[in-house]
Amino acid sequence: MNKQMIIETHKHSKAIEFRFTSIRKFTEHIVEPLEIEDFTIQAIPDVSPAKWHLAHTTWFFETFVLVPNNPSYRVFHPRFDYLFNSYYETIGNPFPRPHRGRLTRPSKQEVMDYRHYVEEHILNLLKESDEELRSKIGPIIEIGLNHEQQHQELLFTDIKYNFYVNPLRPVYRKKTQSSTSVNQPLNWEVFKEGLIKIGHNGKGFSFDNESPRHKVWLESYEIASRPVTNGEFIEFIEDGGYEKVAYWLSDGWMAVKAEGWKAPLYWEKIDGAWYNFTLSGMREVDKNELVAHVSYYEADAYARWAGKRLPREAEWENAFSNQEIKGNFAESGFYHPYVGQEVENNGLQKGFGDVWEWTMSPYIPYPGNKPLDGALGEYNAKFMCNQMILRGGSCVTPLSHIRLTYRNFFQPEKRWQFSGIRLAGDII
Amino acid sequence: MNKQMIIETHKHSKAIEFRFTSIRKFTEHIVEPLEIEDFTIQAIPDVSPAKWHLAHTTWFFETFVLVPNNPSYRVFHPRFDYLFNSYYETIGNPFPRPHRGRLTRPSKQEVMDYRHYVEEHILNLLKESDEELRSKIGPIIEIGLNHEQQHQELLFTDIKYNFYVNPLRPVYRKKTQSSTSVNQPLNWEVFKEGLIKIGHNGKGFSFDNESPRHKVWLESYEIASRPVTNGEFIEFIEDGGYEKVAYWLSDGWMAVKAEGWKAPLYWEKIDGAWYNFTLSGMREVDKNELVAHVSYYEADAYARWAGKRLPREAEWENAFSNQEIKGNFAESGFYHPYVGQEVENNGLQKGFGDVWEWTMSPYIPYPGNKPLDGALGEYNAKFMCNQMILRGGSCVTPLSHIRLTYRNFFQPEKRWQFSGIRLAGDII
Amino acid sequence: MNKQMIIETHKHSKAIEFRFTSIRKFTEHIVEPLEIEDFTIQAIPDVSPAKWHLAHTTWFFETFVLVPNNPSYRVFHPRFDYLFNSYYETIGNPFPRPHRGRLTRPSKQEVMDYRHYVEEHILNLLKESDEELRSKIGPIIEIGLNHEQQHQELLFTDIKYNFYVNPLRPVYRKKTQSSTSVNQPLNWEVFKEGLIKIGHNGKGFSFDNESPRHKVWLESYEIASRPVTNGEFIEFIEDGGYEKVAYWLSDGWMAVKAEGWKAPLYWEKIDGAWYNFTLSGMREVDKNELVAHVSYYEADAYARWAGKRLPREAEWENAFSNQEIKGNFAESGFYHPYVGQEVENNGLQKGFGDVWEWTMSPYIPYPGNKPLDGALGEYNAKFMCNQMILRGGSCVTPLSHIRLTYRNFFQPEKRWQFSGIRLAGDII
Amino acid sequence: MNKQMIIETHKHSKAIEFRFTSIRKFTEHIVEPLEIEDFTIQAIPDVSPAKWHLAHTTWFFETFVLVPNNPSYRVFHPRFDYLFNSYYETIGNPFPRPHRGRLTRPSKQEVMDYRHYVEEHILNLLKESDEELRSKIGPIIEIGLNHEQQHQELLFTDIKYNFYVNPLRPVYRKKTQSSTSVNQPLNWEVFKEGLIKIGHNGKGFSFDNESPRHKVWLESYEIASRPVTNGEFIEFIEDGGYEKVAYWLSDGWMAVKAEGWKAPLYWEKIDGAWYNFTLSGMREVDKNELVAHVSYYEADAYARWAGKRLPREAEWENAFSNQEIKGNFAESGFYHPYVGQEVENNGLQKGFGDVWEWTMSPYIPYPGNKPLDGALGEYNAKFMCNQMILRGGSCVTPLSHIRLTYRNFFQPEKRWQFSGIRLAGDII
Repeated sequence: MNKQMIIETHKHSKAIEFRFTSIRKFTEHIVEPLEIEDFTIQAIPDVSPAKWHLAHTTWFFETFVLVPNNPSYRVFHPRFDYLFNSYYETIGNPFPRPHRGRLTRPSKQEVMDYRHYVEEHILNLLKESDEELRSKIGPIIEIGLNHEQQHQELLFTDIKYNFYVNPLRPVYRKKTQSSTSVNQPLNWEVFKEGLIKIGHNGKGFSFDNESPRHKVWLESYEIASRPVTNGEFIEFIEDGGYEKVAYWLSDGWMAVKAEGWKAPLYWEKIDGAWYNFTLSGMREVDKNELVAHVSYYEADAYARWAGKRLPREAEWENAFSNQEIKGNFAESGFYHPYVGQEVENNGLQKGFGDVWEWTMSPYIPYPGNKPLDGALGEYNAKFMCNQMILRGGSCVTPLSHIRLTYRNFFQPEKRWQFSGIRLAGDII
Repeated sequence: MNKQMIIETHKHSKAIEFRFTSIRKFTEHIVEPLEIEDFTIQAIPDVSPAKWHLAHTTWFFETFVLVPNNPSYRVFHPRFDYLFNSYYETIGNPFPRPHRGRLTRPSKQEVMDYRHYVEEHILNLLKESDEELRSKIGPIIEIGLNHEQQHQELLFTDIKYNFYVNPLRPVYRKKTQSSTSVNQPLNWEVFKEGLIKIGHNGKGFSFDNESPRHKVWLESYEIASRPVTNGEFIEFIEDGGYEKVAYWLSDGWMAVKAEGWKAPLYWEKIDGAWYNFTLSGMREVDKNELVAHVSYYEADAYARWAGKRLPREAEWENAFSNQEIKGNFAESGFYHPYVGQEVENNGLQKGFGDVWEWTMSPYIPYPGNKPLDGALGEYNAKFMCNQMILRGGSCVTPLSHIRLTYRNFFQPEKRWQFSGIRLAGDII
Repeated sequence: MNKQMIIETHKHSKAIEFRFTSIRKFTEHIVEPLEIEDFTIQAIPDVSPAKWHLAHTTWFFETFVLVPNNPSYRVFHPRFDYLFNSYYETIGNPFPRPHRGRLTRPSKQEVMDYRHYVEEHILNLLKESDEELRSKIGPIIEIGLNHEQQHQELLFTDIKYNFYVNPLRPVYRKKTQSSTSVNQPLNWEVFKEGLIKIGHNGKGFSFDNESPRHKVWLESYEIASRPVTNGEFIEFIEDGGYEKVAYWLSDGWMAVKAEGWKAPLYWEKIDGAWYNFTLSGMREVDKNELVAHVSYYEADAYARWAGKRLPREAEWENAFSNQEIKGNFAESGFYHPYVGQEVENNGLQKGFGDVWEWTMSPYIPYPGNKPLDGALGEYNAKFMCNQMILRGGSCVTPLSHIRLTYRNFFQPEKRWQFSGIRLAGDII
Repeated sequence: MNKQMIIETHKHSKAIEFRFTSIRKFTEHIVEPLEIEDFTIQAIPDVSPAKWHLAHTTWFFETFVLVPNNPSYRVFHPRFDYLFNSYYETIGNPFPRPHRGRLTRPSKQEVMDYRHYVEEHILNLLKESDEELRSKIGPIIEIGLNHEQQHQELLFTDIKYNFYVNPLRPVYRKKTQSSTSVNQPLNWEVFKEGLIKIGHNGKGFSFDNESPRHKVWLESYEIASRPVTNGEFIEFIEDGGYEKVAYWLSDGWMAVKAEGWKAPLYWEKIDGAWYNFTLSGMREVDKNELVAHVSYYEADAYARWAGKRLPREAEWENAFSNQEIKGNFAESGFYHPYVGQEVENNGLQKGFGDVWEWTMSPYIPYPGNKPLDGALGEYNAKFMCNQMILRGGSCVTPLSHIRLTYRNFFQPEKRWQFSGIRLAGDII
């Protein structure tokens, strides 16, 4: 995080207030279609209950803004610090993650009360703050809002998974988009070797893991004009992709065997046709949509099968560095990759939105990177092992949250995010 | 089940109606203090969500009474048979038990609607039934009601466990009883050797596993006048009972090590004093109360430490065969063993209610036993391995459900039932 | 153990010496066909390395005879007490059972040296002992020899399993018997109800779990003239026995699913024919042989399929109480159930030898039973939970080890012993 | 592998013969101190039995050299291909790795016979080969010899672990070196930013993962003159390094908790002093020796505690690019890091030998990298996920096997290799 810039942006408490209020409201908007029963469960340890997301994002503001900066502030509930801390182990012993779904109390209503209690105190604190206090809490609030936006995305993906394991297959929100589906051609963009720069330039907010901006030498490479579609992925399946060890990383092959993978997560073959579960219920797979919910192992196997490879994260960032950030994000309210659309040109498409794109780059710190101090330093740095970088955001990422330099990361076996595949290749 | 007797008892549909209505209402009474969020979770595979109990007991009546006997009956929901079947594997593939807590839908309200829909149809069927139909469905309804009463007990024990894992330790119902606690003396009743009879005599309802009544040769034995108290069990703990391998069965010692047992379930030592979690919240252990929530292994270890043994089930039944069935049952609304009370005489006490009493008898069929036909035959027979018999009912057993000959059974490591210890010994 | 009788039997050291020497030699005879490499491994936790059996049986004599009774005795190696103690937890912390196969040292030769060192000291102690010492150590030596005979049986069954997991399928000893196979008819013997007696009468050696002799009331029952054959068991398999849940105990069905059981252990279908692995290698299943290597669950499921049940242990002992103990034991050197033989009469056959017969009786103490004092008391009593009784001995039990009253016991899922099935039924 | 160069090097069969014979002999030299029993076991899945290493390295030559190039060759045993294939899944279904220790047969002697049979055939094939055949099999033999050298190192580390789990703590070879131990100062070498080159230049043998030589931009960095010593690591332990979550990667902290790590593998605290198990038995930790047997997680945690970081692999290779390769390798026969020695200068020391040095670089392919074709392509490429790069070789690596550009890789939790720590830092 470039502190200088954040301070400038948030000099005026009105601007902070506005962002704070609108982002917090969007979280409530996400859970609006849920029944009370839906707020509590955790189908697998990876996903968290909706109630937990609502409370944890609130706990962040209480713990890092209110408690240190408002001496008269009384915490909403003395045990919530224990219940809704996540992984900030330096400031306490968090409640075990796999057991979050065991908590029926606090009730959804109490959690909503908690949210509004903390929101009111934050807004009051802002109102009464002088410039000095604002320059202190502004950057923390900004992190808290970005943190909340990350949990907005997780709310979508966790609700999807929690609904999926129920044989009744509940519908979150009826399908809205229904344009004609078009098969978009696949082209290759070539980039020449050279010493380029990646990483955040310090203007506006960024996470600590995006810094510093630094030089990288890249060999010449090509990159696909769009991510892989469902139709292309079905070819891989039908060519025995999940049965041929030669396409797979060793750990990937073990995952295929252990988990019995035969298709992306949420896919099911019914009477010879592929269906997939969406936040609008089960429906037939649209071959022109971008494939989603594949693990890194599947993305890598697909690339080997196709005679290509995944892009390095520097290659990805370099390729999209001049593009406008627009596309299918959470704000569009579709919560699924768009059906195939006609495009204006044959160049690079869909780098942003729709699906996160797995890169072949493991998540490690940039040269010279410095994590934030104290508990907030745990935010990113301690996950820099055994995870792979994804880039570009998805159909459930808030548009206002994403950046060219944004580094998302997950373990290579994870599939419950909207993760897809863009191919790349060497030029020799 | 003695079919002859059941038919007689239920000749008159009014009597059936009354029992049906009142037992079904008691189930709803049990869940009345719960929040909507409390209905869904399953803290460990042993316990089921409250919603599941409510639906499963209803499914029983739908499946075994309505579907076969009312041709025009339409099931409430086509998937409920899959969701709420439990272990009747002969009639379908039940939803995996450990995943019952993953189901947020149907909602609590839908489950209540399901209950009322089925109840209405049962009452209509009874109303319109002739004697022949009544003699056919009467015994099935009677099993269904006894089945529901078993789940009433499980509702209490499962709610208790689900609340316990929550660090907020919710209170189910405020404590009601508060008499003075008295230390009751422990005496020994002696029974002479002889050929006695145990098992159900066929008058009134019984489960198939209680038949036939049959002869058993018993050697002379003694049996304690009352179960072991918390105070006595604390002596065992303080004498290093959980640390000395010599007291323990081999499998028991493995459980002690694997689970880290140091006291009964729900006990916690705070500042040198023992507390236990109850349906009325945490409170200090009353030394005069009967100890509860011990496994068979702990009961057996305690008995060895005390130089005694647990009773055989035939010894237990023989000892209590002339006693009136009264005591602290679910109907008393206390949901916890009574505090120590003064007693009228020094003879056998508290055989019924308060705590289930572990016997040293494994659960196997009586000589000549015949399980029920078809799917209902799965009810008891298939569990006749690796489980131990408990006798007498507990503070959350409905009084109208218990009998002298009632055989309860659980695996020797289970602790979440109100299970206690009565000692016995050989006379040589 | 009836101490009185043991003392009498062993008054004369020559008799003890002879038994000691011949039983110890038979153990070495068993391992004679092994390669040095075969002595170390442990394919699954249930089986122990041959080397461990050789050392553990020796440790017994060192620990319970030499150390307490010969002040000048120096243990062979100070760490062997830790390595070769098994479950006598009261006298130390045994080396973890599942890790016995991790020990390449001591070498086989060192273990043999250990055996001979201890043997020499035992024989010297006997030689120099007066009557008082002999009456003290005689009974312990007798237990030690019976203990060693139990491990002789385990050596056979463990070698068989350790060889089986090797794709090279080594042969332990070439097949010796080759008589013509005959299909023996199945008849039913009926026994009338009555008060009978079972348990050891105190003449000669017995384990503590066989006492005291005591009365049991038995209802009328029938018992099969011989155990179930491979041919009969194949009918069960071909009738879908392993696929129909209705035949199975609940825990049994879980084992079938978890382990993928489709036939007895060691069976394999090759080109439509059943083969089984024997200590003489793979060979085609002989339909007239008695089926072996089935779990209690399979025995119980077979009985339900056949419309029968397994015998109670008292029924079994009562049925065979007047029979001479003879049959196919370890001494015959065949190490496999005999092929079907013609029989002299249609009455009860093969109660002893060939296969252990599962009973429906869980392993619990007899009324009035007293375990041995001290560490030897761990021998049997602490296993009296979650195990089922087997009776009659098998083709790898030493004939001199078995008795009418002998109680063998294993967990219901175990299959690596030569365990078979004899049916019984109620007479109504 | 640069095929051009290998062909040149191996034009002359005499040179190949000599390398083949001497490397194969060194393998036998390594196992010379073992007892026959030591050849079979596998204490944990990570380590393989000595017998397996001996057979697997032989299987490589049989499968990739003899079978495709000598039509009259008859395999030694038809099942060995199944038993001793390791991970070359494209050419068959390998025997499960965790069960390698279940195989007592083939015996050690049969495996030795297998070795000599294959060696004879390889030497004959070379003798009779023309230049064309030699240019074809020469590169494969060279890979086979490098493969065998990798297994030589594993033989040492696996023997060490297999001995360690035995409470008798066998000694592999008596300690030989005993120079005076010296505390060597720690200095920092600085390297300026720039575009450098790493990777193999194609002269002589290399593995496919070392190519191609390629450009990397490096920021300025400093690197420690020598790896961390035991004494320095003890400071980390004593400062609570294993108890403070702030030093640890998230996955590392889970490993610390799950495995109960409190010190490097093989360390034990006895009466207040640290001892470690070595191939010469237990001995007191020498504070001036380099610390070994730490995981990546421990290396990374140590670096954070020290306010530094681990080097990138390009930084490491750049730093040592002008150094002569010498040091404490397998050939020195010490099989343990040297005791601290006086050094001639204060510059970079001990980059080669003693301990492998963890880098912060995950194992991924170099830009433009092409794996070998066919089954040999599995050799390296499929492990390029979830592993970290180590550099420089250890005290059990053959000197003739190591190179500046050599990329070793292990999962971050592994500790049984001689893996140590060299610190690095940013220059800002």
